[in-house]
Amino acid sequence: MYIGIDIGGTKINSVLMLGNKIIRQIKMPIKSKSKKQIIIAQLFNCINQIILGIDSKKIKGIGIGVPGPVYFKKQKILHAPNVIALKNLDLAKIVKKKFKIRTIIDNDANCFGRAELVIGTKRGKKNIIGLTLGAGIGGFLALQGQLYRGEKGIGGEIGHMIIVKDGRLRSSSCRGCLEAYVSVKGIMKTAKEIGLINVKTPKEITQLAKKGNKQAIKVYDITGQYLGIGLANLVNVFNPDIIIIGGGIANAGKFLFDPTRRTMRKNILSPLAKNTKIVKTKIGKNAGAIGAAFLFTDYKH
Amino acid sequence: MYIGIDIGGTKINSVLMLGNKIIRQIKMPIKSKSKKQIIIAQLFNCINQIILGIDSKKIKGIGIGVPGPVYFKKQKILHAPNVIALKNLDLAKIVKKKFKIRTIIDNDANCFGRAELVIGTKRGKKNIIGLTLGAGIGGFLALQGQLYRGEKGIGGEIGHMIIVKDGRLRSSSCRGCLEAYVSVKGIMKTAKEIGLINVKTPKEITQLAKKGNKQAIKVYDITGQYLGIGLANLVNVFNPDIIIIGGGIANAGKFLFDPTRRTMRKNILSPLAKNTKIVKTKIGKNAGAIGAAFLFTDYKH
Repeated sequence: MYIGIDIGGTKINSVLMLGNKIIRQIKMPIKSKSKKQIIIAQLFNCINQIILGIDSKKIKGIGIGVPGPVYFKKQKILHAPNVIALKNLDLAKIVKKKFKIRTIIDNDANCFGRAELVIGTKRGKKNIIGLTLGAGIGGFLALQGQLYRGEKGIGGEIGHMIIVKDGRLRSSSCRGCLEAYVSVKGIMKTAKEIGLINVKTPKEITQLAKKGNKQAIKVYDITGQYLGIGLANLVNVFNPDIIIIGGGIANAGKFLFDPTRRTMRKNILSPLAKNTKIVKTKIGKNAGAIGAAFLFTDYKH
Repeated sequence: MYIGIDIGGTKINSVLMLGNKIIRQIKMPIKSKSKKQIIIAQLFNCINQIILGIDSKKIKGIGIGVPGPVYFKKQKILHAPNVIALKNLDLAKIVKKKFKIRTIIDNDANCFGRAELVIGTKRGKKNIIGLTLGAGIGGFLALQGQLYRGEKGIGGEIGHMIIVKDGRLRSSSCRGCLEAYVSVKGIMKTAKEIGLINVKTPKEITQLAKKGNKQAIKVYDITGQYLGIGLANLVNVFNPDIIIIGGGIANAGKFLFDPTRRTMRKNILSPLAKNTKIVKTKIGKNAGAIGAAFLFTDYKH
């Protein structure tokens, strides 16, 4: 049995896996700005609950996905804008010391990618680009069937691709980057800008769009144009077989993906690549946690 | 012996290689808008001159680099904005039929990349991004020591990465893409925009910059800001070990690369990647032709 944990900006999702099956699951809300001690206590609590009544010798590993770039070889969390306390935290060591179980950390989007490669519908596909659209944008690249990490293991930061030079500083890290427009905050700012003000979440905007609200449809139309440019750039450079999208914002469905595809087609150079497929992940909300558990199993990393 | 040919927007450069050495070289001017028959006649003329007096049985292959995306597996030229007649031309078959010598075509930037991998200073490096800055921007990716072509062999189109959404349409293909700002035409338009009008080429601008001309320095400062954003995007996604720049525009040296590096540092997310090196190619002007000849030798493609 393996434990997979996905630490996000608002919750910790942990699963106990037996082979490819989830046999137990614990979710726990966390706060983005909590102090180190609190985050660690919550994580310990989560693990204690999930192993309750199980001989800990049967747990062969704890995999943890964290929301930020990880220097994988050195197991170092470089940056974690959505759970600030994680930065530079020796999380794998801390957990291992407490539970005496082998622990590995990885970037959360890479965990999502690993889940896609192991149990996703596109397992056999060679070149995949993956994005998670949520509080931030996570990204993974799978090239020739393997997760691609880059020289120091910090590649895949698709969210910080600048698509509007000198564009608005909507995200904490860079001006005019994809995340500034296509994340939860970015979408809510677009909504505000076009005068859709009685909404609090992208989910509410999607619900309005489904009822035919023109402003709500326009918010996703604008968002899709930004996403389409980001994806066209990636297609021009990578020429992937498929693009897989996860994260809550993907639930906007056609309202987001129709304008995304239109913009992509317009900006992809090669006729051979103009129809590069975009699909929503089929693994669902647990993809990150499942992929974290897979850090120990059959997939080479 | 192998022949390597680099077809560019203004000339055909061909070399006869014995191992890694050039033993004969022919250059010939061509016109970007020449008709098919004329381009083919010039190419045949070039090959005839380079094999003059040599038993053609000793020539084991002709490699040709073309300025546009190539569907490598099918040996198809998909697009060639700078030598229009090449589009959809069955160039490899035509040359093979005429000379009875095995012929392979590839994208010119991939030929440059192959030359870098075989004889460049960074041969051992695993993850490399390469750009050629000239009439257009060519790009190659070498991942884990191998040229990366993508699903249909058309990856690496770095020049068409959009960095200014709804930006100026300066290039023939897309609005606000890197090539619209960092190619010969893009630089000359920037010069015009800031009022530097008595110059005809980027080379002249470089000469002025060396003399301390502030407008000339500003042209490269602006150009470097665009290039810096494009490279920062690539570093955030790929985390390469090194970026190698070729093409005539690279001769602007520090006037271009200082602002490029400044902008990169500002926009690269991870501290570990902020100092990603940019170097000028050391192979020189024949890199494309040499890399075309290497299509037959020790480098896996």
